[in-house]
Amino acid sequence: MKIFPKSVDFFEIFDQAASNLTEATSHLMDLFKNITRLEEKAKIIYGIEQKGDTLTHEVMRRLNKTFITPIDREDIHALASAIDDVLDLIWGAVDRMTVFRITETMPEALEIARALHTTTEVLESSFGYLREKKYSFVHDNCIEINRLENHVDRIFRDALGRLFDDVKDPLMIIKWKEIYEHLEDASDRCEDVANILESIVLKHG
Amino acid sequence: MKIFPKSVDFFEIFDQAASNLTEATSHLMDLFKNITRLEEKAKIIYGIEQKGDTLTHEVMRRLNKTFITPIDREDIHALASAIDDVLDLIWGAVDRMTVFRITETMPEALEIARALHTTTEVLESSFGYLREKKYSFVHDNCIEINRLENHVDRIFRDALGRLFDDVKDPLMIIKWKEIYEHLEDASDRCEDVANILESIVLKHG
Amino acid sequence: MKIFPKSVDFFEIFDQAASNLTEATSHLMDLFKNITRLEEKAKIIYGIEQKGDTLTHEVMRRLNKTFITPIDREDIHALASAIDDVLDLIWGAVDRMTVFRITETMPEALEIARALHTTTEVLESSFGYLREKKYSFVHDNCIEINRLENHVDRIFRDALGRLFDDVKDPLMIIKWKEIYEHLEDASDRCEDVANILESIVLKHG
Repeated sequence: MKIFPKSVDFFEIFDQAASNLTEATSHLMDLFKNITRLEEKAKIIYGIEQKGDTLTHEVMRRLNKTFITPIDREDIHALASAIDDVLDLIWGAVDRMTVFRITETMPEALEIARALHTTTEVLESSFGYLREKKYSFVHDNCIEINRLENHVDRIFRDALGRLFDDVKDPLMIIKWKEIYEHLEDASDRCEDVANILESIVLKHG
Repeated sequence: MKIFPKSVDFFEIFDQAASNLTEATSHLMDLFKNITRLEEKAKIIYGIEQKGDTLTHEVMRRLNKTFITPIDREDIHALASAIDDVLDLIWGAVDRMTVFRITETMPEALEIARALHTTTEVLESSFGYLREKKYSFVHDNCIEINRLENHVDRIFRDALGRLFDDVKDPLMIIKWKEIYEHLEDASDRCEDVANILESIVLKHG
Repeated sequence: MKIFPKSVDFFEIFDQAASNLTEATSHLMDLFKNITRLEEKAKIIYGIEQKGDTLTHEVMRRLNKTFITPIDREDIHALASAIDDVLDLIWGAVDRMTVFRITETMPEALEIARALHTTTEVLESSFGYLREKKYSFVHDNCIEINRLENHVDRIFRDALGRLFDDVKDPLMIIKWKEIYEHLEDASDRCEDVANILESIVLKHG
């Protein structure tokens, strides 16, 4: 019994899910860079979120039909759920932008989106390393993702401080607080993905 | 070894818990239909929440004392926790109504309560189908619950938009935002119950 | 095979983590008693949170390297995560105090901090009892923690009500609502720790 049998293609779906996630954060950066045509940009990210849903369901479906899995069942389940959560939260942030009729962007939102994009790129390469059993590379990536999450934490904290210091309108504060919270939460869930990857590596490494 | 031994009555407790949940959403509808005698109505829902707590503890207690379970231990645990979460969130929404001294209802709150009531009715029948091993019926119910959750998502989104568009008082916005969030969260937890049921069905079907 | 082999020192790390948590709530009480030198006090609690992070990673690292554990792997994992969550939320509350430039304390915040301190003392002694297999003592402690959590729930509820009744500034309401929510969440996570302890006791008792 090989640990990573070739026939099982969970890695392939995870590759697609991670690449889909990177696409979402790339569009998120665009959106916060230039808020014009918000509805149109939101629609694109919604499409990516829908594709992510399909991939998550595909993982779960195969998981329930497969007896031998390349990595522990609960880890596959947890990975798929966590990636799905990241995408849901990114979509949640974008959706709030349209519901709240936001017409101006915030520099901190773009900064977080940039960090999220780097994070998802690192996550995407981690899945490749996992498949190739380059565990020390996965490990290094996880450390990098933790560093990026701390970075987002600090931006979020500063953004919140500046929001209460500089913005006068309570409604605008409530709106942006909620958008920032979605983004920060997305970053937290990325760290969850990294933690699961880390524990998989520790088990096999 | 039978997969569903008659002697174990987890299904019985789940039936009671699901029926208790339906009772809660029924009272929730009443409350948002007509907000008079709020304290009195809240007290009734609190009693239902307390009964739910007892049922959850009963599941956990038996689970820890039982070696052979009709469905996977972790699924029983997850189901009981998720049902408990739904009830906690419904109670949380109602409790906020009294704490915030809300004196007028919102049409969207009633709309969500109606969808939650239908959702809990579908959940209740799902537990019956699970016991009777009518797995395709459970599966169809899960699809219906997912549809209802998407419906609640859209009502929540519109309610949030209208709140910021129409209501002028920031305090009222904060209050209703929090009540809506509890209701939307309750709907999310119902979907969690459905997802667990779906995965049980996939394992046995 | 002994159930609790002497060689494994997970209990030792949990003792340290629980004692670290008690130290955090002790400083939290101090802070809400007298808000002067907030930055300085916040820095101390941040140091405690960082130490907690190290202890959590240590548990996870050893867990992934150990085949035989004194208690179920998933329980060790869940305990370490839940303790980490409590500390994160306490730090989150303190951090918000500085970010929001809070200059006056609230009596309810001190009241919750006091209850949290008692809770963490009870948690700390529970880990001692668990190691010594004094399961009925662990059980009694868990009941006490549940009682304390209900107490915090009521303080939180009253604090929220008074906030909307007495405080006029919407920004101040948003700020304190968020601080209270972090504290109440910390109390919820303490109850999670107790629930895991309870289930461990039920399995072994």
